Amino acid sequence: MATNGEQQPAQHRFDPKFTETVINATGPKTSPRMREVMTCMIKHLHDFAREIELTVDEWSEGVALMNWAGQMSTDRRNEGQLVCDVVGLESLVDEITYKKAAEAADYATQSAILGPFFRHDHPTREKGATITFNTPDDGQVTYMHGVVTDAVSKKPLANATVDVWQASTNGLYEQQDENQVDHNLRGKFVTDENGEYAFYTIRPTPYPIPFDGPAGKLLKLLDRHPYRPAHIHLIVMIDGYKPITTQIFDKDSKYLDDDSVFAVKDSLVVEFVPRKDDSKAEYELKYDMAMAPNDSKEPAGPALAGSGAISS
Amino acid sequence: MATNGEQQPAQHRFDPKFTETVINATGPKTSPRMREVMTCMIKHLHDFAREIELTVDEWSEGVALMNWAGQMSTDRRNEGQLVCDVVGLESLVDEITYKKAAEAADYATQSAILGPFFRHDHPTREKGATITFNTPDDGQVTYMHGVVTDAVSKKPLANATVDVWQASTNGLYEQQDENQVDHNLRGKFVTDENGEYAFYTIRPTPYPIPFDGPAGKLLKLLDRHPYRPAHIHLIVMIDGYKPITTQIFDKDSKYLDDDSVFAVKDSLVVEFVPRKDDSKAEYELKYDMAMAPNDSKEPAGPALAGSGAISS
Repeated sequence: MATNGEQQPAQHRFDPKFTETVINATGPKTSPRMREVMTCMIKHLHDFAREIELTVDEWSEGVALMNWAGQMSTDRRNEGQLVCDVVGLESLVDEITYKKAAEAADYATQSAILGPFFRHDHPTREKGATITFNTPDDGQVTYMHGVVTDAVSKKPLANATVDVWQASTNGLYEQQDENQVDHNLRGKFVTDENGEYAFYTIRPTPYPIPFDGPAGKLLKLLDRHPYRPAHIHLIVMIDGYKPITTQIFDKDSKYLDDDSVFAVKDSLVVEFVPRKDDSKAEYELKYDMAMAPNDSKEPAGPALAGSGAISS
Repeated sequence: MATNGEQQPAQHRFDPKFTETVINATGPKTSPRMREVMTCMIKHLHDFAREIELTVDEWSEGVALMNWAGQMSTDRRNEGQLVCDVVGLESLVDEITYKKAAEAADYATQSAILGPFFRHDHPTREKGATITFNTPDDGQVTYMHGVVTDAVSKKPLANATVDVWQASTNGLYEQQDENQVDHNLRGKFVTDENGEYAFYTIRPTPYPIPFDGPAGKLLKLLDRHPYRPAHIHLIVMIDGYKPITTQIFDKDSKYLDDDSVFAVKDSLVVEFVPRKDDSKAEYELKYDMAMAPNDSKEPAGPALAGSGAISS
């Protein structure tokens, strides 16, 4: 099936005026963007239904699945989002948003892209502190560090905040797991006068996205696994620069090629190397980030290949 | 915007391999139909997001709306379905299903298309009985009758069941309204030896679909009204024939041209005429139905232009 570039004209035997009728029902007071988005959505939704000749029963199953997603969603879980994730939609809108942000200097990244496991109240910790307070037996302690720079001048940036969060080796974030202390594997670090940040954490491991709801059902129906490759979430911010929200992936992890939510991009894959001369850590990870000034069209890097808003 | 027939090739500046990657994640054990439906769905979903350059914030609003729909849905209310209805999807899959059913003799219409206001336990009533037990002050009593025939032989069909339900003039079906008795404005009639059915009811009136949830919010954002034209729901069944599920619309009703759920088709519009010599009714409605034998490719009529599965 052609996914782009050579779509066939939609030939079908159904009411040729129907889609136009629905689109034209939109009233004059709709916002221009709402009109544009919904016109395109209705067109594709109808073309999809006609191309595949979707039946009432099949549509009803889809409605039941989406209603179920809403019913499972809470303050701590967004199953509607997860259903989108397994069909690649969050990763795609993330790519789109990132490209638009890189082109428009006045665009501010919204907190909506952070997903359900981010918390706004990460404690600020000292450079070199640890964020692993309940290190599991299979946890491999890692020293992560790097430099935050200006993408244009290449100079180090002091006082940038590096916000980090990750799951433990059992696949659970601290708010999902009563055996982890509050804010385990989370912290906010401020870069020093050399633009440097540093902390101890554990090397992340692959884990399955929640499999007990409609997203899991969809994965089963699609004969797919629910695993995500090992990753660490990061947000880097400093006044005057475009914020970066990203995930970095362990190059030795399983599932890099078949992330269940399609968030991996080559530039986000990093290497954990054995740590020398440090009794506190087995591994080391160096990760630098270049920040694009708000008024420049320079993209941020190296996280630029994806802003990595996937939530899980 | 072209709604069919002359789609432009999808030109975009995003990862050209992404959609293929998501589609190819589908495993070998997926059913052929699931693969076909989801491949088409993913393609259109991604094309939609790229064409409109959907942002993370906009997508998040959509996710929140769909989660809200699930949270509002209960045994008595299907808000996910209603959201689909206002963008024409139920009416479209109904048209598709009807066309497929008319072509495939072995297709059985499923109860799933009946919507939340149908009940499976309608009492069987005598020919000529009434279904209006709480006639409101503004209710105009109507004598509805007609003949059920074989669409091929044109002969009348005895023992067909005609199942009917409708809202009262306040826009509420009996299960939504504590001031209506159980099974008010509902009944099941069996055709006599001449294929005839007959009953008293009230002339239906327009009413708004529920406006307090995401479907209502979507209508507001689209600057649209929530009204449906006056209609009566019907299901006609007899062994050996394809069942007909339909709605018929009052030709004098408002909103025939702008039904909020796009269910009106010309062939489903009927005329209420003044009733003569009957102290029990102001109006009369004659409506005949022709049933297609299960083994024929003959479409059922006159309800054939739409099987009318819209639920509200």
